[in-house]
Amino acid sequence: MRFMVKPSTAVIGAGISGLTSSKMLTDYGIPHTVFESSDRIGGNWAFGNPNGHSSAYRSLHIDTSKHQLSFRDFPMPMEYPDFPHHTQIKKYLDDYAEAFDLLANIEFENGIEHARRLPGGGWELTTQRGEKREFDLLVVANGHHWDPRMPDFPGTFDGVAMHAHDYIDPSTPYDFRDKRIVVVGLGNSAADITVELSSRAMQNDVYLSTRSGAWIVPKYLAGQPADKYFKTNPYIPASWQRKLSQLAQPLMSGRPENLGLPTPNHKFMEAHPTQSVELPLRLGSGDVTPKPNISRLDGRTVHFDDGTRVDDVDFLICATGYNITFPFFDEDFISAPDNRIDLYKRILYPGIDDLMFVGFAQSTPTLFPFVECQARMVGAYAVGRYRPPAVDEMRRVIEEDMHKYTGHMLDRPRHTQQLDYFLYEHDMRTRELPQGARRAAAEGVVSWARVNGAAS
Amino acid sequence: MRFMVKPSTAVIGAGISGLTSSKMLTDYGIPHTVFESSDRIGGNWAFGNPNGHSSAYRSLHIDTSKHQLSFRDFPMPMEYPDFPHHTQIKKYLDDYAEAFDLLANIEFENGIEHARRLPGGGWELTTQRGEKREFDLLVVANGHHWDPRMPDFPGTFDGVAMHAHDYIDPSTPYDFRDKRIVVVGLGNSAADITVELSSRAMQNDVYLSTRSGAWIVPKYLAGQPADKYFKTNPYIPASWQRKLSQLAQPLMSGRPENLGLPTPNHKFMEAHPTQSVELPLRLGSGDVTPKPNISRLDGRTVHFDDGTRVDDVDFLICATGYNITFPFFDEDFISAPDNRIDLYKRILYPGIDDLMFVGFAQSTPTLFPFVECQARMVGAYAVGRYRPPAVDEMRRVIEEDMHKYTGHMLDRPRHTQQLDYFLYEHDMRTRELPQGARRAAAEGVVSWARVNGAAS
Repeated sequence: MRFMVKPSTAVIGAGISGLTSSKMLTDYGIPHTVFESSDRIGGNWAFGNPNGHSSAYRSLHIDTSKHQLSFRDFPMPMEYPDFPHHTQIKKYLDDYAEAFDLLANIEFENGIEHARRLPGGGWELTTQRGEKREFDLLVVANGHHWDPRMPDFPGTFDGVAMHAHDYIDPSTPYDFRDKRIVVVGLGNSAADITVELSSRAMQNDVYLSTRSGAWIVPKYLAGQPADKYFKTNPYIPASWQRKLSQLAQPLMSGRPENLGLPTPNHKFMEAHPTQSVELPLRLGSGDVTPKPNISRLDGRTVHFDDGTRVDDVDFLICATGYNITFPFFDEDFISAPDNRIDLYKRILYPGIDDLMFVGFAQSTPTLFPFVECQARMVGAYAVGRYRPPAVDEMRRVIEEDMHKYTGHMLDRPRHTQQLDYFLYEHDMRTRELPQGARRAAAEGVVSWARVNGAAS
Repeated sequence: MRFMVKPSTAVIGAGISGLTSSKMLTDYGIPHTVFESSDRIGGNWAFGNPNGHSSAYRSLHIDTSKHQLSFRDFPMPMEYPDFPHHTQIKKYLDDYAEAFDLLANIEFENGIEHARRLPGGGWELTTQRGEKREFDLLVVANGHHWDPRMPDFPGTFDGVAMHAHDYIDPSTPYDFRDKRIVVVGLGNSAADITVELSSRAMQNDVYLSTRSGAWIVPKYLAGQPADKYFKTNPYIPASWQRKLSQLAQPLMSGRPENLGLPTPNHKFMEAHPTQSVELPLRLGSGDVTPKPNISRLDGRTVHFDDGTRVDDVDFLICATGYNITFPFFDEDFISAPDNRIDLYKRILYPGIDDLMFVGFAQSTPTLFPFVECQARMVGAYAVGRYRPPAVDEMRRVIEEDMHKYTGHMLDRPRHTQQLDYFLYEHDMRTRELPQGARRAAAEGVVSWARVNGAAS
C-alpha cells in the first residue's frame, strides 16, 4: 500500500512519546506538527516544567539503568552514570531532539485544547492560541504521569494533604523539617520521598502507609544495575520466568514483613516491584514507621486499619499514582476510566483509524525503548506500510494481550497498564509489524481518505 | 589467689568501656570510682556531648545490627530496629546503667587531668576539680573515637577544612547546601557524610577522595542484617574463612572500580569493610564524583593524584579517623604513636600491673560485646581471680596475637587495632581467663601491694 498523498499528522505533546513519534514520522517523511503546551520539550522530564506536567522532584533519578533506558537508536553517553539524574535525562532528550532535528516541527506554548473528529474523518484541533487547525492523523502522546490521582479516605484532614506530584524537595513547596508526615503508597515515588524526608537530619517523624504492599528490590544486584539481569525470553512461557524470579527473590531482598510492611497481595514480579535500596535500610533503622492502609481522617489525626493512629500530622503526602486523562477529548468520545483504555497494541483505537496513542503503558523494565517501539508503528502506519487487522480481530487481540500482560496481576488502576517490554518489542518486531506490512502491501496505492473512511 | 584487701579502683571514662568495666567491678564487689569529664554517660554515643568527645552526627545509626551489638548480659529491646539510631544507643546505655545501678559510682564533670604512677605502685590522680586522689588500680577507658586525626596534605587550603568529628548535619556547624565539597576517606563516616550531603536536594557538588580504597558491603544481605551471617569459627583457620568470604564477595557487592573507586590495596575482609547501601547508589547515580588521593592544596583548588583538580572548593571534610590519646599520661610514660600500643590481650601493659585498658581495638563485627569481654578480665583481675603470665611471655603473646589478628592487614594506623571479636572472645573464654584463674589460684591469699610491687 502507498498513499497518494501523505497524511498531515498532528502529535499532541513533546515528551518522550511525542519526540520518538516525531522522529519516526520524520524518518518516514511524514509532514507533521507537534503541539506542546510548554515552552520546552521533555514533558515529565523537564523538571519544574512551566506547564505543570512534570512530576519530577529535585532528587529524582530514573529507576531504570541507562543500559535498559536508552532509545535503541540513540544510546546514552558513555560518561553517564548507571542511573541518570533527571537533569541528565532532560539533556539526553535535548540532544535527541537536536540530533534528529525535531525542534523545527514543534509548536511550543501551543498545546491542544480540543480535538474534534470531523464527520468524514480527520481532525479539527483547537490550540492554546485559539486557532483551529485540521489534520488527517492524530497522535496522542500527552503522557500518563501528570494528572495526580488522590485517594479518597473517609473523614476530613486539617493538615496539608498533597500529592507526590507537587513534592519538589525538603523545603519546597513546604518546609518539610521537624514535621509529622504520613506518606501514602509504596511505589518508587513513595519510596524516594519517604527516604528523603526520613533522614534524621530533617528531624521529621515519617510514617509510611500502604494498602496492598509491594516487593522491594535493590537498584544494584551483586554490583551491577539490577535490571541488567532482567530480560524476558519470548520463547519461554512468561509464567515460568516469573516463577524462577520468585524462587530467586529471597536472595535479592527479604520479605517485606521483616520490615514491618504488609504481606504483598501478589507474588513477586506479578506487579511492578518498587526499586529502592534505601527504604529497607530506613525501615530497618527505625527512621520510618510502617503503617497499614488509612481507615479514617479526623482533624490532624490519621487512623489506620490496624486500629493505631498518628496524631498531630502536618502532611499527608499521597504518592498514589496518576490518571490517564485526555482533556482535549470530549469525555463521552474517548476516556480511560480507572486508567483502562482498550487499544490494539496499546496504539490503535478500534474503529477510529486516524487516531494513534503512544506511551500509554507501564512498561517493565523500561519505558523509553517501549515508546520508541510504538513510534515505529506510528511511522509505518502513517506512510502506509502498516495496516491493522479488521476491527473484530483487533478486539480479540486486545483481550488476548491483556491476558498475556496483566492476566496474572491485580485488578488495580495502576496495574491495568502493566506490560513486559521484551515480550512487546519481540511481538511488534517479529509478528505485528511484518504482518501489518503484508496487509498494507495487499492494498496497493490508495488515498488516505479511503483508508480512513473505510474503517470509520 | 585472694586479696587481703580489695584494690581501690579508678575508671577513666563512662562510655561503653567504662560502663561495662564498672558493671563487672560491681559484680565482683570491687570498690571503684568512675571519673567522667562530661555531665552524662555514653561518651561517643552521647550526641552533642558537652565534653566534645562525641563524634556522632545527627543521622548516625550504628553500623552493627542490634543482634550483634547487644551486650551479652543486656539484650537490646525487641522493639528496637535492626540498626538503632544514636538516640536509641544512648537510651540503651542509660537503661544499662540504671539496671546495674552504675550511676552511684560515677563522678560527673570530674574527668582525670593527670595520672601519676606512685613510686611503690598505685596511682595519684588529679581530677578536673583539682583534687588529688589515690587508687590502687587504674582502668583506662577514655575511648579512641574522640581525638580527630587530620591528614597532612602539601599546600594551603583557603576554604574550610574540618574533620568529620565536627560534622553534625547539613546545616551544622556550617550551611552545607549549594556548596562544593570534597570528602576525604572511605570509612563509614566518610560514606555516611558523603551520602547525606550528596542528596540532590542539597544541591551540592560532592567529591569523594580516597587513598587506599575500601570494599563496600551492604547493611542488608538477602533481607537480613548482613552481620547476622558473619561469625568466625575459631576451629577453622581464619585465613580459610577470609578466602571463603572473598569468593562470596561478588555476590554481595561488585568491584569498587565499577563505581569509579580505586582498587583496594587489600583483599576483601583483610581490613574492615565500609558498610553502606547508599554510597554505591550515589556513585552509580552520578551524585558523587570519586577521586583518588589529594596531591596538593592550592587556595580553593584541590589537586588529585591523577592530575585532575576541583576548583572553588568550599569544604574539605576529612573523615580520616581518630588518634588514640591518653592526655592524662605524661607522653614519655605511655602513649600510642600511630595508634599502636602493645597490650597483653589489649588490656595489660607488660610491666605495669596496676593498669588496665579497655576498649582499645577496632573489633569486627561488633564493639559492645568486645568491651564487655575485656571488662570480664578487669573484674576477674581486680578480685584476684586472674593473673597474667610473666612479662616475657606476655610480650611473646602480644606479638603472636598481633600476627593473628592483623598479620594479613595493612600497616596503617587505622588497622593496627583491628581484631576479630569471635576469635578474641573465644580465646578469652576458653583459654585466657581459665588459665589466668589457675595462675591466680596457685598464688593463694596475697596483698594487692605484693602483687603490684612484684611486677612493677
